[in-house]
Amino acid sequence: MFIEPGKLLNKVNSPEELRKLSKDQLPQFCDELRQYIIDTVSIHGGHFGASLGVVELTTALHYVFNTPDDKLVWDVGHQAYGHKIITERRDSFYTNRVYGGLSGFPKISESKYDAFGVGHSSTSISAALGMAVGSNHNGDKNAQHIAIIGDGALTAGLAFEGMNHAGSLKDANILIILNDNCMSIDPNVGALREYLTDITTSKSYNKVKEDVWNLLGKMSHFGKSAREIVQKIENAMKGAVLGNSNFFEALNLRYFGPVDGHDIDHMVHVMEDLKNIPGPKILHCITKKGKGYEPAEKDQTKWHAPGLFDKLTGEIKQVASPTPQPPKYQVVFGKTIVELAEKNSKIVGVTPAMPSGSSLNIMMDAMPDRAFDVAIAEQHAVTFSAGMATKGLTVFCNIYSTFMQRAYDQVIHDVCLQGLPVIFCLDRAGFAGADGPTHHGAYDLAFMRCIPNMIVSAPMNEEELRNLMFTAQSDKIQSGKDAFTIRYPRGKGVMVDWKLPMQEIEVGKGRKLKDGEDIAILSIGHIGNDALKAANELEKEGLSVAHYDLRFVKPLDEEVLHEVFSKFSKVITVEDGCLQGGMGSAVLEFMIDHGYTAQVKRLGIPDRLVEHGEQAELQAECGFDKEGIQKACLAMLAAKTLA
Amino acid sequence: MFIEPGKLLNKVNSPEELRKLSKDQLPQFCDELRQYIIDTVSIHGGHFGASLGVVELTTALHYVFNTPDDKLVWDVGHQAYGHKIITERRDSFYTNRVYGGLSGFPKISESKYDAFGVGHSSTSISAALGMAVGSNHNGDKNAQHIAIIGDGALTAGLAFEGMNHAGSLKDANILIILNDNCMSIDPNVGALREYLTDITTSKSYNKVKEDVWNLLGKMSHFGKSAREIVQKIENAMKGAVLGNSNFFEALNLRYFGPVDGHDIDHMVHVMEDLKNIPGPKILHCITKKGKGYEPAEKDQTKWHAPGLFDKLTGEIKQVASPTPQPPKYQVVFGKTIVELAEKNSKIVGVTPAMPSGSSLNIMMDAMPDRAFDVAIAEQHAVTFSAGMATKGLTVFCNIYSTFMQRAYDQVIHDVCLQGLPVIFCLDRAGFAGADGPTHHGAYDLAFMRCIPNMIVSAPMNEEELRNLMFTAQSDKIQSGKDAFTIRYPRGKGVMVDWKLPMQEIEVGKGRKLKDGEDIAILSIGHIGNDALKAANELEKEGLSVAHYDLRFVKPLDEEVLHEVFSKFSKVITVEDGCLQGGMGSAVLEFMIDHGYTAQVKRLGIPDRLVEHGEQAELQAECGFDKEGIQKACLAMLAAKTLA
Repeated sequence: MFIEPGKLLNKVNSPEELRKLSKDQLPQFCDELRQYIIDTVSIHGGHFGASLGVVELTTALHYVFNTPDDKLVWDVGHQAYGHKIITERRDSFYTNRVYGGLSGFPKISESKYDAFGVGHSSTSISAALGMAVGSNHNGDKNAQHIAIIGDGALTAGLAFEGMNHAGSLKDANILIILNDNCMSIDPNVGALREYLTDITTSKSYNKVKEDVWNLLGKMSHFGKSAREIVQKIENAMKGAVLGNSNFFEALNLRYFGPVDGHDIDHMVHVMEDLKNIPGPKILHCITKKGKGYEPAEKDQTKWHAPGLFDKLTGEIKQVASPTPQPPKYQVVFGKTIVELAEKNSKIVGVTPAMPSGSSLNIMMDAMPDRAFDVAIAEQHAVTFSAGMATKGLTVFCNIYSTFMQRAYDQVIHDVCLQGLPVIFCLDRAGFAGADGPTHHGAYDLAFMRCIPNMIVSAPMNEEELRNLMFTAQSDKIQSGKDAFTIRYPRGKGVMVDWKLPMQEIEVGKGRKLKDGEDIAILSIGHIGNDALKAANELEKEGLSVAHYDLRFVKPLDEEVLHEVFSKFSKVITVEDGCLQGGMGSAVLEFMIDHGYTAQVKRLGIPDRLVEHGEQAELQAECGFDKEGIQKACLAMLAAKTLA
Repeated sequence: MFIEPGKLLNKVNSPEELRKLSKDQLPQFCDELRQYIIDTVSIHGGHFGASLGVVELTTALHYVFNTPDDKLVWDVGHQAYGHKIITERRDSFYTNRVYGGLSGFPKISESKYDAFGVGHSSTSISAALGMAVGSNHNGDKNAQHIAIIGDGALTAGLAFEGMNHAGSLKDANILIILNDNCMSIDPNVGALREYLTDITTSKSYNKVKEDVWNLLGKMSHFGKSAREIVQKIENAMKGAVLGNSNFFEALNLRYFGPVDGHDIDHMVHVMEDLKNIPGPKILHCITKKGKGYEPAEKDQTKWHAPGLFDKLTGEIKQVASPTPQPPKYQVVFGKTIVELAEKNSKIVGVTPAMPSGSSLNIMMDAMPDRAFDVAIAEQHAVTFSAGMATKGLTVFCNIYSTFMQRAYDQVIHDVCLQGLPVIFCLDRAGFAGADGPTHHGAYDLAFMRCIPNMIVSAPMNEEELRNLMFTAQSDKIQSGKDAFTIRYPRGKGVMVDWKLPMQEIEVGKGRKLKDGEDIAILSIGHIGNDALKAANELEKEGLSVAHYDLRFVKPLDEEVLHEVFSKFSKVITVEDGCLQGGMGSAVLEFMIDHGYTAQVKRLGIPDRLVEHGEQAELQAECGFDKEGIQKACLAMLAAKTLA
């Protein structure tokens, strides 16, 4: 839907046009840009608070720096809506996050202004540093490289690694802008967060240093012995204040700030200055997530990505439904862990900065001593979990599938090689939907099942998720040496009445859900619901299709598989995961290892990038939704059988 | 071989017995412990310098703390030889790193004194913090949890994530001991390193603070206006010195030190004090790698793990060979990248703290501006490489296969999703040998081949490695969107005359090395030499065995595979990598996708932990050395063919 831009914004289709505005016009431009974001997101949805918070910062950056030659690297990228609107995408911005439309994140292939693709956090410093070194290598000494990173993203180890390297490359022309809004999606946590608050709430750090030098200057009035003492204090101060100065200066980054990130005049002024200071440096900006839209300023977590809303009343629109709806898997997880923890005092929960996203916040509220938000720090989340497990605790470590990629070594090295029965709940497995390729949980079945001492499972519905969680925390598992992965998708399950009594599941046991004669479908996880529907509908058309829910990719249900390959010469596997090395591949390994012969068609995520869109759209595109499964069955049955 | 321990050491089989010594006896005990390490390692090999550097620290820890109830978490763990000797493993210590013997690293399953298994760096803080939280959860408020971490390991993001969390858990009883010896295996790099040197070479930081307060106290003599000024300075100082104090204090960790880590009296004294200070804290110890053995003090990189040596002369024993030997793959990499970079000015090299291990030091010496040691920071190494690639540079990012697990997300998210043609050289792929399961590069084929926009290759010999490197940097690849992985093992290749002119290889093209009729062997990488020998020997026994070197796991050589599956009903795949999802699995996918039927036996690393030992021993244990391959051929040929 067309959104009417304000007068100035209407004239600005590119940074070049922005730079034609006078400085006096910038406050109005910022107002219009902010309004445009509100207008669009209220109707079309998307991330919200983060972009409102950096309207002035975004404007100042494109006004002062020579984009796209100067490089802006937005960390995470859900704050880059203003950037997209300014950089030739205003009129297509309404397609943001829609199938076939703009990506919700910066993306190299989408625009020359998107210097680096993002989605996961904390990559910007390393990337911008690489660019700065690349510019030096290319002899381009004037190029500017700017990483814009939130205080939340700063907690991840990658950001620290980048700063540690940047501080040692004195000729790397990199400006790190710390966009300090005290938030991740949820409030930011950790010691560094407290430290940033200390800097901000005390007087300006630089001001303090100035004051001390001024005062020491005055002391010279007091005669010789006073002057000697002043001299000694000065020397000591040089060691204590200047040498061991602030956190960032300890890393050799010149520190500037804090400054008010909503003062556009000042921001432009500061950036013009910083443009002329070479080497690695950091500007500390204080901003407010949701700035300029009162409801969003007040409840920043809720307004991180609120869905559609009435921009005048601030009322978030609920999708009305005449009938009761199944819950989200996330809610089932959050409520079930509390239910289990109430009975099993050994249970603790861990999330790296996703309390509301994972619903671990339900446990954090109910039993704050037993649920830990460890900040954006997936690696630490896993090794910390391993440490707790050595003390006999039963740890549910909940990490989005796509973010688990960041803790892969810790899963192998700190959990599985040590035989520690940590439970990994991999949220948002399979297609993530509108967040797109950076967030798809496509690879987890492949990269988890190759690790020894690892059970890999996926529930087909809410009851199964509960039973798998119940099983994972049972004595039987917790006295053993296997880690236990449970992966489930973003969004709703299929059971309105989901809160059934929990039962232990035998590890490595699948389920036969439908008998049949002509062909067998093997599925894993939630997509099994589509498979079952496909099988049932085909039955009505006269085809006899069996359906098995494997439940476990590792260990596989050998009994079921012997049954399947003894009986069927045509088999279809279905997974919401990559075809290379995934569940279907595990089934092939079993089949060949055991000397069976069958035609097997594997359905799942193909070996290419799948862009953003509704989960169902993407599954259809890749041919493993209900229709895709049916087509595969029909094609296989039409083909001649093996000789 | 039995090593005679010194008098005091002879009486000490456990920390309990150590604690029976008087403090006066500790210096002699330390001398004897150091000598025992020298005596053993000179004859049996192993890591060396790191353990010598922590003799006093190790002794003090076990003397003061109540191990094993108090938990020592050694980071990396190659400095834990003294720990092993003190903790009931003195007499078996000569089996260190030998097949069937002690592990070179702490390991939970080996001893109750090994609180956490290690091998990779920078896990100790997170693990010890998890233990501290676990103890609190268990109501055990007196338990002590000590992470001993080197300054090298402190550069990894995981360590930072752990500190950031630790600093926010005020009731977590954790002591971080920073073992500051200025070294990784190679000299430590990065901004934090410079900072630690600043602290250490200036007066003690705490001393400076004391001095200032003392001096301010004296100022009160100077009357009212002086006192007012003093007051103002004090307030300012509180902000500047105490509030924004040192790096660690910024993270809410109480900082103590630096102290001389070789002063056993003082170390015992300090630890007795620290034992009574609750909450998260850090002790900064200055030690010298190789301490007490002069040659090792002088060349710390060389003596990190020197092999066997004459302890009296300090001469490192070279294995004499009557004939010229093939080079190590590492050397081939190091010399070839320089050769390529001399002709192609776009080439740069990156290593995360493994310049000598990877041989990138050859390039760092030859062209220091184009080769980067980014510290122990694999995540950053990859994203930094991606950043450089956006600027058109051709980046060879060399990371050990096992450490690449730590940068998995960066490979997916920052390189492949963006279509950046970064070249990954995965060193030490397959069995690592004496370093054992933490270091085996077992999973890379499985976890790399499931990523889109990724080529995965492995050379069978030196010439192939050079040709793959040549190909990866060619315009054809560098103008495309595929990352290029080349994985090769630790140790020697097979070609004495290896420096042949380089040739481009067509991506996805394998090689038929031997024709045959009865059975086909498909191999990937160096293990193909065993496969070829196996095939040739079987030929002499009258069996006709074909052998193909696939070269690429992705894309597979479809032409070769069509040929193989058209012709052979019996196929064996051989890889020095995990069977789950690896090369063999990729071959199965091809076979079934294309409707072929064959018996396939997959040889490789099984789904369990394989311990340490010589590479050949481990390959034999897992049945994929030459004999194993032959057995598999014979077994398959003996079995009845498919109906």
